[in-house]
Amino acid sequence: MAASSSVNPARTLVGLAVYDHGSSSNARPDRVALPAGGSALSTLAARSVTSSPSPRFQQCASRRRPKPCSSRRAALARAAAVETVEAAATDALVDKSVNTIRFLAIDAVEKANSGHPGLPMGCAPMGHVLYDEVMKYNPKNPYWFNRDRFVLSAGHGCMLQYALLHLAGYDSVKMEDLKQFRQWGSKTPGHPENFETPGIEVTTGPLGQGVANAVGLALAERHLAARFNKPDNEIIDHYTYAMLGDGCQMEGIANEACSLAGHWGLGKLIAFYDDNHISIDGDTEIAFTEDVIHRFEALGWHTIWVKNGNTGYDDIRSAIKEAKAVKDKPTLIKVTTTIGYGSPNKANTYSVHGSALGAKEVDATRQSLEWPYEPFYVPEDVKSHWSRHVPEGAAFEAEWNAKFAEYEEKYKEDAAELKTIISGELPAGWEKALPTYTPESPADATRNLSQQNLNALAKVLPGLLGGSADLASSNMTLLKMFGNFQKGTPEERNVRFGVREHGMGAICNGIARHSPGLLPYCATFFVFTDYMRAAMRISALSEARVIYVMTHDSIGLGEDGPTHQPIEHLISFRAMPNILMLRPADGNETAGAYKVAVLNKKRPSVLALSRQKLPQLPGTSIEGVEKGGYIISDNSTGNKPDLILIGTGSELEIAAKAADELRKERKTVRVVSLVCWELFDEQPYEYKESVFPTAVTARISIEAGVTLGWEKYVGSKGKAIGIDRFGASAPAGRIYKEFGITAESIIAAAKSL
Amino acid sequence: MAASSSVNPARTLVGLAVYDHGSSSNARPDRVALPAGGSALSTLAARSVTSSPSPRFQQCASRRRPKPCSSRRAALARAAAVETVEAAATDALVDKSVNTIRFLAIDAVEKANSGHPGLPMGCAPMGHVLYDEVMKYNPKNPYWFNRDRFVLSAGHGCMLQYALLHLAGYDSVKMEDLKQFRQWGSKTPGHPENFETPGIEVTTGPLGQGVANAVGLALAERHLAARFNKPDNEIIDHYTYAMLGDGCQMEGIANEACSLAGHWGLGKLIAFYDDNHISIDGDTEIAFTEDVIHRFEALGWHTIWVKNGNTGYDDIRSAIKEAKAVKDKPTLIKVTTTIGYGSPNKANTYSVHGSALGAKEVDATRQSLEWPYEPFYVPEDVKSHWSRHVPEGAAFEAEWNAKFAEYEEKYKEDAAELKTIISGELPAGWEKALPTYTPESPADATRNLSQQNLNALAKVLPGLLGGSADLASSNMTLLKMFGNFQKGTPEERNVRFGVREHGMGAICNGIARHSPGLLPYCATFFVFTDYMRAAMRISALSEARVIYVMTHDSIGLGEDGPTHQPIEHLISFRAMPNILMLRPADGNETAGAYKVAVLNKKRPSVLALSRQKLPQLPGTSIEGVEKGGYIISDNSTGNKPDLILIGTGSELEIAAKAADELRKERKTVRVVSLVCWELFDEQPYEYKESVFPTAVTARISIEAGVTLGWEKYVGSKGKAIGIDRFGASAPAGRIYKEFGITAESIIAAAKSL
Repeated sequence: MAASSSVNPARTLVGLAVYDHGSSSNARPDRVALPAGGSALSTLAARSVTSSPSPRFQQCASRRRPKPCSSRRAALARAAAVETVEAAATDALVDKSVNTIRFLAIDAVEKANSGHPGLPMGCAPMGHVLYDEVMKYNPKNPYWFNRDRFVLSAGHGCMLQYALLHLAGYDSVKMEDLKQFRQWGSKTPGHPENFETPGIEVTTGPLGQGVANAVGLALAERHLAARFNKPDNEIIDHYTYAMLGDGCQMEGIANEACSLAGHWGLGKLIAFYDDNHISIDGDTEIAFTEDVIHRFEALGWHTIWVKNGNTGYDDIRSAIKEAKAVKDKPTLIKVTTTIGYGSPNKANTYSVHGSALGAKEVDATRQSLEWPYEPFYVPEDVKSHWSRHVPEGAAFEAEWNAKFAEYEEKYKEDAAELKTIISGELPAGWEKALPTYTPESPADATRNLSQQNLNALAKVLPGLLGGSADLASSNMTLLKMFGNFQKGTPEERNVRFGVREHGMGAICNGIARHSPGLLPYCATFFVFTDYMRAAMRISALSEARVIYVMTHDSIGLGEDGPTHQPIEHLISFRAMPNILMLRPADGNETAGAYKVAVLNKKRPSVLALSRQKLPQLPGTSIEGVEKGGYIISDNSTGNKPDLILIGTGSELEIAAKAADELRKERKTVRVVSLVCWELFDEQPYEYKESVFPTAVTARISIEAGVTLGWEKYVGSKGKAIGIDRFGASAPAGRIYKEFGITAESIIAAAKSL
Repeated sequence: MAASSSVNPARTLVGLAVYDHGSSSNARPDRVALPAGGSALSTLAARSVTSSPSPRFQQCASRRRPKPCSSRRAALARAAAVETVEAAATDALVDKSVNTIRFLAIDAVEKANSGHPGLPMGCAPMGHVLYDEVMKYNPKNPYWFNRDRFVLSAGHGCMLQYALLHLAGYDSVKMEDLKQFRQWGSKTPGHPENFETPGIEVTTGPLGQGVANAVGLALAERHLAARFNKPDNEIIDHYTYAMLGDGCQMEGIANEACSLAGHWGLGKLIAFYDDNHISIDGDTEIAFTEDVIHRFEALGWHTIWVKNGNTGYDDIRSAIKEAKAVKDKPTLIKVTTTIGYGSPNKANTYSVHGSALGAKEVDATRQSLEWPYEPFYVPEDVKSHWSRHVPEGAAFEAEWNAKFAEYEEKYKEDAAELKTIISGELPAGWEKALPTYTPESPADATRNLSQQNLNALAKVLPGLLGGSADLASSNMTLLKMFGNFQKGTPEERNVRFGVREHGMGAICNGIARHSPGLLPYCATFFVFTDYMRAAMRISALSEARVIYVMTHDSIGLGEDGPTHQPIEHLISFRAMPNILMLRPADGNETAGAYKVAVLNKKRPSVLALSRQKLPQLPGTSIEGVEKGGYIISDNSTGNKPDLILIGTGSELEIAAKAADELRKERKTVRVVSLVCWELFDEQPYEYKESVFPTAVTARISIEAGVTLGWEKYVGSKGKAIGIDRFGASAPAGRIYKEFGITAESIIAAAKSL
């Protein structure tokens, strides 16, 4: 059942504002810090009660606000919000902090003469409240397991997040880094990249991805909490926050993921919709007039509207409080802001979205917001106010470590399992669970063999979970020992994504980025990778280990016809950096593909699997797959076959058959399975030469896909047999024959070489 | 302003039920039949009033209905609906017709032992009402311009549409074709393909695409009506109907397109949502619990719920009537049905979705629906009832031809323009509008040059319209002489798609499929083709001439970083069948790319364009682009250069520079622009040999993308310079240098060869 938190982060904030600075030296520089159960760290958890930091800055800020809240209303709202946030500063100091954020963004974009100042200027208040008052994190260990997650779905506004990470004390964003915004090799690239900047959870920028990642992060929290929390120890308990703009809202992927979040009732997901009415083409009136709040209600979300996001800090605080109180639904907080707030001539226009303000307008903005400081200046009182986050964060982690130590003592087995999820360490001998096959094993579709692997792995890999986009019974992805991950059963591991491929991929990215030991898989027909390619590219770029289980991988699916027959997809993933495209031919190769997918912790894998039955071929092996390409049979000596036949997946069988025929004619023929080009290309020269000797130019490849790219292996004198047109609707055997994907074609080609 | 129709199709139906059969011989077999203004055909438009066909079948059908409407209620509703539909048959005959449709689907799937009987069985009533009572079409000329359009977005249920086309008298679906369902070379493939089966408007199957195509079809109608209709002659006036299921509803693309349809107020778009609660994974409860009606209201649609879609014919009729009355909003009619209606043991289960029922269950269904006939039988009374559609359809077209003749007489210029849109014929000399450049013309980004071409073409191509996914000012796609296509100004040609790439692509497919002379273009950053790849594949497969204007085509975009830098995208489209991937290098090549895009009526084109300025290179030409690859400079003789340098787009300049350097060292160097691989590959052998002589193996390619695939042109002994990793965030010049995409790299490579 769902574990709804009883630990209020606001309460744990109390008293931790001033903290023994010595403790920050205990911060973990490691990417993943395992809780050291019972270690010295746990003693840090003792709450050293003290008062909140006293405000040093009392300047009246009301004149600065173009749209000031009535101060009485603000006071009332503040009274309501104060329970949530003990450590809040005075309004004046908050103003100053918010303007610090705005100007760090303005100045960095100005220096780079490139970037997006508009969002940070409008969203700085939300950013301040979240990072300064609401979120639990440890700046000196950005990977502390139980941190709140934040995703800037509108990734172009990344200077907002860089400014916040800087103020909060993250080592990844020093002042020099802010000054290197968008420069070669900097920690502050043009869009947030988790692999560049610790503190960034996921790579965003392509719109709509981030909010879907946030759904995945929230799913992971809910799932792990349901599995591991105990009535006396809610060891997993964090929120996931996302910030998205009009652009994200328009993208279909966002609707897909948010529909699922509503269905799953992810109560600890809180999304801020930066409603600024401006997109690149101008006023959103020209293309986006739907009622977003109404739509989210239809999707099963709780919704709140903060009408003054520019200065209405208390409204933002109250909204977060309300969102946290609604435990069975995710919350969308629509926050109406002014893009480029503070810029007298560019605010509320698209011109402030994606370009530097220009020196003149920067000056005008300094005037308008009464900001007398030089560029990149952080006022001392702001610095001092934010400085508490380092000790506080260390204390959060220490407190949690102590909690984990108790957990470990009481729930040894659960703790051990949870540790593997936190660390990503694979249990010793896990790979022995992989099934193996002999040529005598029954012929089977690789999609079925894939299911055998998934079910075998689910027993040994506690972090394995996933599912299909409404094709579980076709993709063969159900884990038989588990039920469905649902609102009422979040501890289960079969995720039902519905027909939402794009959202599915991005949700899996979020799951993978939540914890190193979570291993999400997702599935659809291979051809429908076209629907989720943008999410798959983010898997590759952001080093998210997602296993893409893609069945019906060729014309072998038959009657469904060309809309369902992938032709160009293998090459299109072979071309994508940092993703492994695997096309196993039988049981051993499918097991090998899974071994590779599990072991490659920093890259996703795509498994292309057959709908149709395939024989278990002599010579295939897990070890072979790990090399990407290998010889499955050969009757030559001295590394000088007359001919090399190369196949992948369902066509390896055809290559093997043709080889048998040709050998009867006294030819020496080598058959190579080129199951994963990327892995093969990474092998040492000697190995590659042992498979494809330069001297042997008679080479024929066969694959039920386009021939483009095969020149790389067959060379100028070889021949690639494939399909350079769209497929057709007919029984599979007929299509193979009509398209010449046959042993006869190979034999004819061999004779012509 | 919007042209809301005052011509009620129901009224034109009156009296046309019985028609001079001789007229059917006037049906046009041509793909596109131009109205023959003032010809003999117009005399056919005289309305020969007659009575509706008399029902010959009076059997009481009420016993067959598991959920019978109260007959009184039905009679009342019928009374309301009768105004709309004069030609409706008795309930009993309708039942019989509906069951004919069901069993044609059941029998065809059974014979193929493959297919999807569930949807046709559930949606047959909707299908019957639409094709028999509501829609205006001419079976003998499926391309009659003013026909109502129907899109089966849930394409897997195509046997529904094949059965309907067959009953309606389309030559494309004879009884033999039904019996060849899903067989090699048949007119009845596994999913609807417009290029296989006249009568099918668009290729569907990949879910969500169809409803977005329907938005494009409805947009086209609204736009053309606004441009061409006159107060006394509404020459363009048809509806667009779509049928979509739960799967389509879950897809993000559907939300994107429907959000736009609501924004645009496409009142003549009527979508039927087959609400059957079943998807492949089982009950939709497991993944799809949002409130669809509520969501569509938020998107600005009118909504209606028909609770008994299985037998509630009158409710369906009333809903359509209501939908037509709402002229400023599209309408979603949610029709609750039972998937596999009539199958005693499989109805309302996923097992009836995508598999043949099996002989036993087919028998049981025959019993249950009291269907005593052999497979593929169409009862005589049903046949006779439907037979009126051939003469009626001919009359619709003839009447419209007469109307067009009047239009032509009165509005000569408009008529001429409209004719080019209807026929797809290009105005003589259109290509003279394309701008040309000399090496002295100023350097410019190809995205800007693209805008010059678009604006030049807009003056001569009346069917050119399109826009960008919220990047008009970056993609440079605005047509300066036109305003925005909006609810209040649908006659304009700049379409504002918002940040909805996938919906945009599919909407453009719909526009392209509406009329041969409509030429939609759409734009985003090249990297975001990943969001719309599924729609682009449908463009390619369904022969939809869409121009994809894809800017920011490489690392040359600089600071936005790897999420925005396409690396693997060129090859991924070169691999896709029937789509042209063009990467022009300068002004002449950009003009050439547009010439190619316009002339290729049966394939879409992708133009990859630079963000950064590029010089106008000596030697480039429109004619060169038309050949796909050509020599831009060469100092060799006898077709034997020492070295061939090959570049595309922004790297052609680098190749030219390197050639200059190498020539200084007395090398003979040829520079080839390989702007479009597909076109080059189609050239005769002699031409290809004249560009790439087999004997010259010293070849170097340079392109800011992956090197995979370039082996095809540089051969085993050549070298491909490219980028086989993700990009980086930094100023463009720095990235080019760091990645070695420079003249120096070419020179070094040349020396190593």
